[in-house]
Amino acid sequence: MTYENKMRSVIKAISWRFFATLQTALIVWVITGEIKLAVSAGVIDVIIKIISYFIHERVWNSVKYGRTDRPSFVLWFTGLSGAGKTTIATEVYHELQKEEYKVEYLDGDVIRSIFPQTGFTKEERNRHLGRVSYLASTLSKNGISVIAAFISPYKESRKFARSLCENFIEVYLSTPVEECEKRDVKGLYKKARDGKIKHFTGINDPYEEPENPEIVIDTSSKNLFESKKVVIDYLKQKELI
Amino acid sequence: MTYENKMRSVIKAISWRFFATLQTALIVWVITGEIKLAVSAGVIDVIIKIISYFIHERVWNSVKYGRTDRPSFVLWFTGLSGAGKTTIATEVYHELQKEEYKVEYLDGDVIRSIFPQTGFTKEERNRHLGRVSYLASTLSKNGISVIAAFISPYKESRKFARSLCENFIEVYLSTPVEECEKRDVKGLYKKARDGKIKHFTGINDPYEEPENPEIVIDTSSKNLFESKKVVIDYLKQKELI
Repeated sequence: MTYENKMRSVIKAISWRFFATLQTALIVWVITGEIKLAVSAGVIDVIIKIISYFIHERVWNSVKYGRTDRPSFVLWFTGLSGAGKTTIATEVYHELQKEEYKVEYLDGDVIRSIFPQTGFTKEERNRHLGRVSYLASTLSKNGISVIAAFISPYKESRKFARSLCENFIEVYLSTPVEECEKRDVKGLYKKARDGKIKHFTGINDPYEEPENPEIVIDTSSKNLFESKKVVIDYLKQKELI
Repeated sequence: MTYENKMRSVIKAISWRFFATLQTALIVWVITGEIKLAVSAGVIDVIIKIISYFIHERVWNSVKYGRTDRPSFVLWFTGLSGAGKTTIATEVYHELQKEEYKVEYLDGDVIRSIFPQTGFTKEERNRHLGRVSYLASTLSKNGISVIAAFISPYKESRKFARSLCENFIEVYLSTPVEECEKRDVKGLYKKARDGKIKHFTGINDPYEEPENPEIVIDTSSKNLFESKKVVIDYLKQKELI
């Protein structure tokens, strides 16, 4: 829960005073027709009221009523290596950060670099994503939205993530494997073709397409700006931002 | 970031009005000596000011200045099985929840039941606690305090947790192994003695005592109420709650 510091209350009290004493003086002036009386009333009013307003603010600061955290959500990007998950996800992340939303970014490559002992077999991938899902749901349950970018090739692990998280939004980057291989930003497709990487999704490991993703983006026909807009518009439409 | 709903502003406007119009009327009465004039001024004042106050509140609702999240912390309970980690940790957790602090509870047994594939060798324990530390630090970084209860027998993993988390508080339950074995709430010590459990801390696996824990509690000489108080008092003293 946020709380407000005393300086905020002081400044609000003064801000309110400028606004309110003017009205008080005007009321006295209109009723009595005497400008001098109006000014006297105004001066006394200022002193007493600033102090009163400050006290009133401090009392309300301890009242929880009407203060709400925004709903949190989990944006789960899935798709082949090179489809644009990290690129779009970080773009959306920075946009939300700029707007001061509480949001955390979880990236497959980053988390694997912190815990390098995780393998790439179906079982290991699902176990890894199980832990990531638990992390995402714990954050989300505490009011922190999550943007997750993981190849997450198996339906099973995406279903598990969905089951744990409220407001789960699956963003499927449907860019065809040919296009991803053509880009081959990290040179991984070549290595997989040469047999230097085993369990490479799309080449020698399966990718199970999502059946009912909330959002589908093919980055061979949409640029970064358009892709980001699709996601942001969806969040706005669902009143999550 | 929390935001305030409109109803809160309406109620604050009315609450302020009772308080403020009374003063306005009194000021007019003291200056003019006329009670009728004081009442008229009061009535007009009420109507205009309630609306003004509401507008003033809504404008301030969009101002971030002076709104702060409380500092978060990580309370890390370490000690032998049966020392009282879960008991004291949940008690502290409920106390903080009752006071509406944002706090998450991570328990060794619970997390292991969600991810049962984690083993008990030194390497597996450290890897497991590495992931838990990452979870704790991510929560804490986002303003959610964490209460963690893990045997965490190795200095290495506790040092890693400390390195990741700000406001890290190590709570060492120093209850001697003889006392823990005498309690043997879950019957685990007996199983370990019978050779049915391998890698059981304190029996056939080491426990490396913390060197500089922030808090030390021996639950053979302190009851639950006293133990909880030690932790809560520490948090208060450090102005974390």
